[in-house]
Amino acid sequence: MRGFPPSKEARVTHAQQLLGPYNRWSFQNIQKLNPTAEVWRGEGAVVHFDREPRDLDGISYQRRNGSRYTFGEMLELSYTDGIAVIHQGKMIYERYLNSMQAHTLHAWASGSKSMTGTLAAMLAHEGLFDLENQITYYLPELKESGFAGATVQQAMDMTTTVKFRRVEGGPLTAHPSMVEDWQYSVTLGWLAKPEKYTGPETSYELLATMYRDGEHGERFTYQTPNSDILAWIIKRLLNKPLADIMQERIWSKMGVERDAAWVVGPTTEETSGSGLITTLRDMARFGQMMLQKGRFNGKQIVPEAVIEDMERVALPGSHNPMPYHNQWWLANNEHGAYYALGYGGQILYIDPSAQLVVAKMSSYPVPVDGGEEFFHAFAALPALANELVK
Amino acid sequence: MRGFPPSKEARVTHAQQLLGPYNRWSFQNIQKLNPTAEVWRGEGAVVHFDREPRDLDGISYQRRNGSRYTFGEMLELSYTDGIAVIHQGKMIYERYLNSMQAHTLHAWASGSKSMTGTLAAMLAHEGLFDLENQITYYLPELKESGFAGATVQQAMDMTTTVKFRRVEGGPLTAHPSMVEDWQYSVTLGWLAKPEKYTGPETSYELLATMYRDGEHGERFTYQTPNSDILAWIIKRLLNKPLADIMQERIWSKMGVERDAAWVVGPTTEETSGSGLITTLRDMARFGQMMLQKGRFNGKQIVPEAVIEDMERVALPGSHNPMPYHNQWWLANNEHGAYYALGYGGQILYIDPSAQLVVAKMSSYPVPVDGGEEFFHAFAALPALANELVK
Repeated sequence: MRGFPPSKEARVTHAQQLLGPYNRWSFQNIQKLNPTAEVWRGEGAVVHFDREPRDLDGISYQRRNGSRYTFGEMLELSYTDGIAVIHQGKMIYERYLNSMQAHTLHAWASGSKSMTGTLAAMLAHEGLFDLENQITYYLPELKESGFAGATVQQAMDMTTTVKFRRVEGGPLTAHPSMVEDWQYSVTLGWLAKPEKYTGPETSYELLATMYRDGEHGERFTYQTPNSDILAWIIKRLLNKPLADIMQERIWSKMGVERDAAWVVGPTTEETSGSGLITTLRDMARFGQMMLQKGRFNGKQIVPEAVIEDMERVALPGSHNPMPYHNQWWLANNEHGAYYALGYGGQILYIDPSAQLVVAKMSSYPVPVDGGEEFFHAFAALPALANELVK
Repeated sequence: MRGFPPSKEARVTHAQQLLGPYNRWSFQNIQKLNPTAEVWRGEGAVVHFDREPRDLDGISYQRRNGSRYTFGEMLELSYTDGIAVIHQGKMIYERYLNSMQAHTLHAWASGSKSMTGTLAAMLAHEGLFDLENQITYYLPELKESGFAGATVQQAMDMTTTVKFRRVEGGPLTAHPSMVEDWQYSVTLGWLAKPEKYTGPETSYELLATMYRDGEHGERFTYQTPNSDILAWIIKRLLNKPLADIMQERIWSKMGVERDAAWVVGPTTEETSGSGLITTLRDMARFGQMMLQKGRFNGKQIVPEAVIEDMERVALPGSHNPMPYHNQWWLANNEHGAYYALGYGGQILYIDPSAQLVVAKMSSYPVPVDGGEEFFHAFAALPALANELVK
């Protein structure tokens, strides 16, 4: 997006923002294309990481197909915009590419779910609600929907079996890994409303139209509306927007460098499963807080028990059959690593065993079948962890 | 905007945001309804005002119709959301109403013009361009438009005589004091594009369609496109968005508390004459910097000569026949006061003689003929200044 005015060819529009290569620009300029709800950092001092730089570029990793690469190569191959590596609490590596700067607010995409899930987990731990209760206990509007019979914990772990009622005739949209359903994307504000649109106006209404396809709780099905369920419950019970809850419970306590923000839909509701933006370092702070069992900046921010539950489930010996817990992905490795993940390759990787946090903002432009955008990092990060614990 | 989901009656939409009473909410929630370009505050420490609270509520003023009111009454009568009074560099009064908080980002509306004008004035002073040059010297795209023959200074002072080519059939919009032309508002992003819209896509294109109605330079005609001219020139010459120019030249140097932001249009261009949002205190800091002849936070931020020119023109003896200079209103009083002004009654009032700065965020819901929303403050602020210099 260069020039005043930018040429037609140089423009990035709202309609293009989720598509590559436009997301190489849009992920760093989300607020210029979307309405957002700010998450104020508060007034406290910034908590800076101690620094002990290490050259990690030569660390070698092997992908499942056997080919070998280095950590430095991985950065380019996975379209990294920024990466920070925190080991034993010290920042040992920080790089920015693709014009990203330390103060740039970058899209987390689906990594946002892990923020929403963490808020839900901590509020449930405090007794605001019961994860084993049915979703419809808190959201009676959904009694006739496919969510009936599912527990909140099942939404947390994405083991509900809801499906979208597909409606033909939507605008040509992005890859399904970015846009699960076009009407859903309209209600989130990610897609403009087509002319003569008669579908649900808000994601609240859309959730009520989803239907059940099988028994809840038996299998993992990645569906962003589960995140909306969590956000809706805590917003209703606290009578506050998600952005304000995040501000009060997490963001204003962490000594972050900058405000965060959420993309909001037509009733200014936050896109709880897709729309968070923060700086890279603030993402790293959030990860380090998780690594430190919820303690950061001299405060217990997330209850220790919430993190210990996550760490326990993340260990292969926990016999947890699902790859996802409380809106975090489980690496299923001996380190008990878990991570937030966005479709552009954004990762917040937490390895308790190696005392490692990797925050990685990326803008993989074209998702490919098999998830090429993820697997470089998925091979590189455990290799990095192994190197660090040597 | 209450409830999850908010009831239809409780919703404030993009289409309503400029209208009362919705602007009582929307002016404090601009980012939730519009895309914005952030203006980073930088990394420096916050510059706090010393405080020496005074009770100003009883100060009496008389309106032109003879009726008397008090400063405290004025706050409610002019739909104040927040007000800060700085006298001799000390904050002597600070009040928030209508749910506004100290960290709330509030719309400046047309007060934004004074930020754009100040940036243009300082850059012209540095030699980036010449205010006496023709606008079309920098913007040849406008050679066939009504701006041909006008100087940049005439745009600064709103003495160009351009008019909109009115096009019928626009959506029902707000009062003309908020929306000068519906197609113009569409290009700024303040109004959604109606179905089958065939008008200009951007404000850049719209400016080229305006025509001349009389000799430039002879009379004052308040037209927001003049602000766009200034922003366009400095963006083009520096090859940066207005938000970035403001960040580098002013915002990152002032020790402000929070980032600012600009509402942006369809090519992410800032609404240079209407779309700035900041906290109340940061507005006051900007005013205090002007009062201190451009010096604040230990830095000369705006050149002293730029302020001295403003102060000179603002004195009635200057024989300046126009009420507006460099995108600031001139109070035309013996104190040489000048001010930024938004249609909701937002005012940044600078009285060099009384060493007074008043920052006032307001959301007057229904503009009335004759400007009821302004005249309470217009009577109260000089009365306050007179009280302070007693």
